[in-house]
Amino acid sequence: MVLLSGGLDSSTVLYFAKSRGFRCFCLAFDYGQRHKKEIIAARRIAQSAGSTLRVIKISLPWKGSALLDKSLKIPGAIKASRYMDIKVWARQVTESIPVTYVPGRNIIFLSFALSYAEAIDAQALFIGAHAQDYSGYPDCRPEFYRAFRGIVSTGTKSGVEKRQIQVKTPLLGKNKAEIIKLGVKLGVPFAWTWSCYRGGSKPCGACDSCYYRQKGFREAGIRDPLSEDLR
Amino acid sequence: MVLLSGGLDSSTVLYFAKSRGFRCFCLAFDYGQRHKKEIIAARRIAQSAGSTLRVIKISLPWKGSALLDKSLKIPGAIKASRYMDIKVWARQVTESIPVTYVPGRNIIFLSFALSYAEAIDAQALFIGAHAQDYSGYPDCRPEFYRAFRGIVSTGTKSGVEKRQIQVKTPLLGKNKAEIIKLGVKLGVPFAWTWSCYRGGSKPCGACDSCYYRQKGFREAGIRDPLSEDLR
Repeated sequence: MVLLSGGLDSSTVLYFAKSRGFRCFCLAFDYGQRHKKEIIAARRIAQSAGSTLRVIKISLPWKGSALLDKSLKIPGAIKASRYMDIKVWARQVTESIPVTYVPGRNIIFLSFALSYAEAIDAQALFIGAHAQDYSGYPDCRPEFYRAFRGIVSTGTKSGVEKRQIQVKTPLLGKNKAEIIKLGVKLGVPFAWTWSCYRGGSKPCGACDSCYYRQKGFREAGIRDPLSEDLR
Repeated sequence: MVLLSGGLDSSTVLYFAKSRGFRCFCLAFDYGQRHKKEIIAARRIAQSAGSTLRVIKISLPWKGSALLDKSLKIPGAIKASRYMDIKVWARQVTESIPVTYVPGRNIIFLSFALSYAEAIDAQALFIGAHAQDYSGYPDCRPEFYRAFRGIVSTGTKSGVEKRQIQVKTPLLGKNKAEIIKLGVKLGVPFAWTWSCYRGGSKPCGACDSCYYRQKGFREAGIRDPLSEDLR
């Protein structure tokens, strides 16, 4: 089971799982996000890796995130630059949680993935979360994944029956540049991935997600096939 | 935030939360269950308590539970009686997980509830899980709720910001008869609740859920206003 958003992190995770010999089933979510293009990206990436993709439509009727609520502005590069010097923020996230935070989003995604994983008797659940170099989401931190493993062992049939589904976060300690290098090594078709929060016809180059993508490619010394005109 | 299924446990929890002075927002799920009647029940119960109810439609496209999969038979009273002598099974659930177990169901429900609770800045999240006298669901056990509190503290903005949403399970140590007695004391309109898994026009009187309801009312020495013809 691979949670696949269509961005470069989850795409790299899919190729990583595949390289380790896993037969992969991917799961993406249509949750009313502005950047629906990522679902199209997820489909292409899954196909390229020879995996199946299921898209789950969920409604989060409550607002509270700029990714869902069009009355909130997605912060641009000036805001993003506030975070650029945060090297390891995993321990103390306080005021830096951004407006693009969707309450409980990863928890919801992981719950569905866990349900699906149990139903198909999967061995492992892969997610491309990483704690470094990102925008301060609490549900991307190592301690959250430790807690989530507790959920798997206590709250599922497989956990109780001691054939617990492994929760794999292979990117957790990596920064964007390291992820990109790994992806290139694994043959991830980065040209098909989508990162921009704004979901326009081209990456905006200004939101957090574009900012970290560009920074990652630059630091890795690799050309981003998707947005070379933005470099 | 109250997870309200329309059954007698969650209805009692709603009235309990109300009696403690909470202004309650209820959440129910349409997840393809056979017993959709419980959603109608949830609506009436929420209204009776002066609360709002949101119904979230989710699709679990994978099978694996008799509650969702019509090719699986919901076990009747003979099967249910297998569990009748299990007094406290919370510690060691092994082979007794029934076919009505939906993989990760409570985890999914709780994730949505947590997301909603964060979005409306709720103080607490109530769920009517109880470990005694029930059919062996791993996600109803105390250790699962302990693990879930770890999710709330590590994976949410409110948790990180130290105004953590309290996860309340006031029924956890109670059996069905005790819950019914509490409900009567709190004025829960039990005639409007729905428990039967089969979701017919009348309770079947044979599934696990009917079985425990009947047993609970009998042990409490209280007449079940819903199914007196079954007694």
